[in-house]
Amino acid sequence: MKLTSVKGTNDYLPRETALRDFLQGKILETYRSCGFERITTPILEDIENLDKSEGGENLGLIFKVMKRGDKLTEALAGGNPKELADIGLRYDLTLPLSRYYACHRNALGTPFKVIQLDRVFRAERPQKGRLREFVQCDIDILGSSSANCEVELIDTTAKALLAVGIEHFKVRINDRRILKSLISFAGFAEEDADSVCITLDKLDKIGADGVKEELLSKGFDPDSIERFVSIMGITPFTLEEARKYCSDTEAVDSVASIMASVEALSEGRYEIVYDRSLVRGQGYYTGTIFEVESLDFGSSIAGGGRYDNMIGKFIGENIPAVGFSIGFERIASILSAKADTLPSVKKRLAVIYSESQVVSAIQTADGYRKDYDVALFEKPKKLGKLFAKLEEAGYYGCLITDESAELKVFHA
Amino acid sequence: MKLTSVKGTNDYLPRETALRDFLQGKILETYRSCGFERITTPILEDIENLDKSEGGENLGLIFKVMKRGDKLTEALAGGNPKELADIGLRYDLTLPLSRYYACHRNALGTPFKVIQLDRVFRAERPQKGRLREFVQCDIDILGSSSANCEVELIDTTAKALLAVGIEHFKVRINDRRILKSLISFAGFAEEDADSVCITLDKLDKIGADGVKEELLSKGFDPDSIERFVSIMGITPFTLEEARKYCSDTEAVDSVASIMASVEALSEGRYEIVYDRSLVRGQGYYTGTIFEVESLDFGSSIAGGGRYDNMIGKFIGENIPAVGFSIGFERIASILSAKADTLPSVKKRLAVIYSESQVVSAIQTADGYRKDYDVALFEKPKKLGKLFAKLEEAGYYGCLITDESAELKVFHA
Repeated sequence: MKLTSVKGTNDYLPRETALRDFLQGKILETYRSCGFERITTPILEDIENLDKSEGGENLGLIFKVMKRGDKLTEALAGGNPKELADIGLRYDLTLPLSRYYACHRNALGTPFKVIQLDRVFRAERPQKGRLREFVQCDIDILGSSSANCEVELIDTTAKALLAVGIEHFKVRINDRRILKSLISFAGFAEEDADSVCITLDKLDKIGADGVKEELLSKGFDPDSIERFVSIMGITPFTLEEARKYCSDTEAVDSVASIMASVEALSEGRYEIVYDRSLVRGQGYYTGTIFEVESLDFGSSIAGGGRYDNMIGKFIGENIPAVGFSIGFERIASILSAKADTLPSVKKRLAVIYSESQVVSAIQTADGYRKDYDVALFEKPKKLGKLFAKLEEAGYYGCLITDESAELKVFHA
Repeated sequence: MKLTSVKGTNDYLPRETALRDFLQGKILETYRSCGFERITTPILEDIENLDKSEGGENLGLIFKVMKRGDKLTEALAGGNPKELADIGLRYDLTLPLSRYYACHRNALGTPFKVIQLDRVFRAERPQKGRLREFVQCDIDILGSSSANCEVELIDTTAKALLAVGIEHFKVRINDRRILKSLISFAGFAEEDADSVCITLDKLDKIGADGVKEELLSKGFDPDSIERFVSIMGITPFTLEEARKYCSDTEAVDSVASIMASVEALSEGRYEIVYDRSLVRGQGYYTGTIFEVESLDFGSSIAGGGRYDNMIGKFIGENIPAVGFSIGFERIASILSAKADTLPSVKKRLAVIYSESQVVSAIQTADGYRKDYDVALFEKPKKLGKLFAKLEEAGYYGCLITDESAELKVFHA
């Protein structure tokens, strides 16, 4: 039998799990204090719902669960591999939330401010930092198109990051409507906007020349490309600069107002900047998009945006929606490296007892369990060896029931 | 697209999630205070590990995840349906724990007292109360064959049940070694013990006559059946009665000593009884087995036992192990019916603000967030309607930022 966990998944040791629980608890507490309510949805999701969800490249990364019994036999006989699965593992928490809201909205508040903190699955090629099973911490506001929702989401996410000890970060913001308007201004056809965006997303990596080259190789009109690259090449490309080329004034005003509010709320603890080349992969975004970049880690630790058309796919009526997701694994890996962020859990005591005295040992332990986490150990022949192991494992002290009632403290 | 969750899975509303989180938190806190440490293992498990795990009827209920890319193409071409999946969703937490311990044991304490609180999956026929995705709360002790482990597990599980408000329950205990010895005493061959056990498991449901009939239909020797049924029919069938027919004195002594210790520790809050017909389904149990029965609900809410041979399958060296699992869904459904067990979460306040005042509204809200969970609402035209909704949703009170700084309390 195989000893290691499935490729791309992790076993977590006790001290890692304690840190993860502590961090998730802090994030959840922050979200709740800001008026969001937690819900839980299943990990299993209907395969058709997943396939039709406009999840961008994530759609190619869905783990598919095989049909069972007669339905499997039937599907195997049919010979169409696409018929073999009826269920998939969710690749994010946004699609399940949209289905959930569509199904239960009469029982939910308006706007509905919701927390999801749970596992998602993607069949990524296992490489450093790319997990196939990982945790996301999402907050979403459904049922309101006010730009104040974006302000609340960014403010609350920043509060959660600060609460767990992530101090150096920057919020980047853009709007799909501005992107589309700029792309159209440059002369591209509306239906090419997505393809242009995919290339633009690489601006930071491949530079303006790289973007130009890739757009040319995609066969777009050279004049449009020239115009687009020269606009995008303006430095610094501020929101006021964008305003000159963007016909969607409402979108620019909305980004400006969100930025002003967040800046006031940040009180200088973090920065919010307009980023002309922020795209984000998912196809379902319709307006504002944003990311948090860790300045220590140099990469994105949270991302989100507005997806006003997703819930409409379930109920035929569009419900405005916007969400922000913390990539929990990044946070956990940043913080596990810092010794001073270890959770302030209860101190641990060991009660060491003779084999026949289990009842009185447990009764003794119970007396300490309000203040300590107390573990029982049968008295071994070599007591010194046990002491050394307990000290190494971080125990605060021990009691030996058949010697004295005195608490022996390891680290005085 | 489909609105409802996948058959056999649940969406949980905010108040249901709050209760589930509260209960899981209480159980976890109790387990930790008793010296157990939490670990996390993946939901995805190697399909071969699962298939070889002796999980009894659960082996037929494994959700299988299809291979991807070239490996899927290859498997499809091969034409063997068994080759289509490489991963499965775990059906319990015991197999992953055994693999985990085999893999990481050098980094873990001895004995290793471990908590797992997580989701498992079984492709049950969806019927009332049978979920396909559900939560288990397990504690296990690995690396010790002392019967004091059983005492600790039963005592700790009982403490967790009492902590969440389950008060009327009974612990039933048996030992696979006693069962085997009685079966052998009656004259059955050793290899028939499992089959006899499967029938015996139904004693409560089908009675002694039903057991006899089923064993006859299985083609066993009528004399053996007669002897077995007449022994099992003795009423009351105490542990002392078992001693007369059981050649494994050590097993009887062990059960007797566990019962005496647990009885002393229970201080009359619950009962522990020897149950001659307790079998438990899994094939991997080797010694003590136990269950908790809710006297209000009339069914099993926790179960476990000793499985000394499972870890050996991974490393070729047997490691003694024993575990106890709370069926969380049963607990949650019992307690959700009781109004007085609702979680003692923070009170909720609403801050109602004019659209343009989001910054000052958030700043006002922040001032209350130490003591309350505070949600923001844009001021609607019909304020009375919002008040009514907030009251109904259980808000404690509200503040209207552009009217006065005074807190309006709904339920004085």
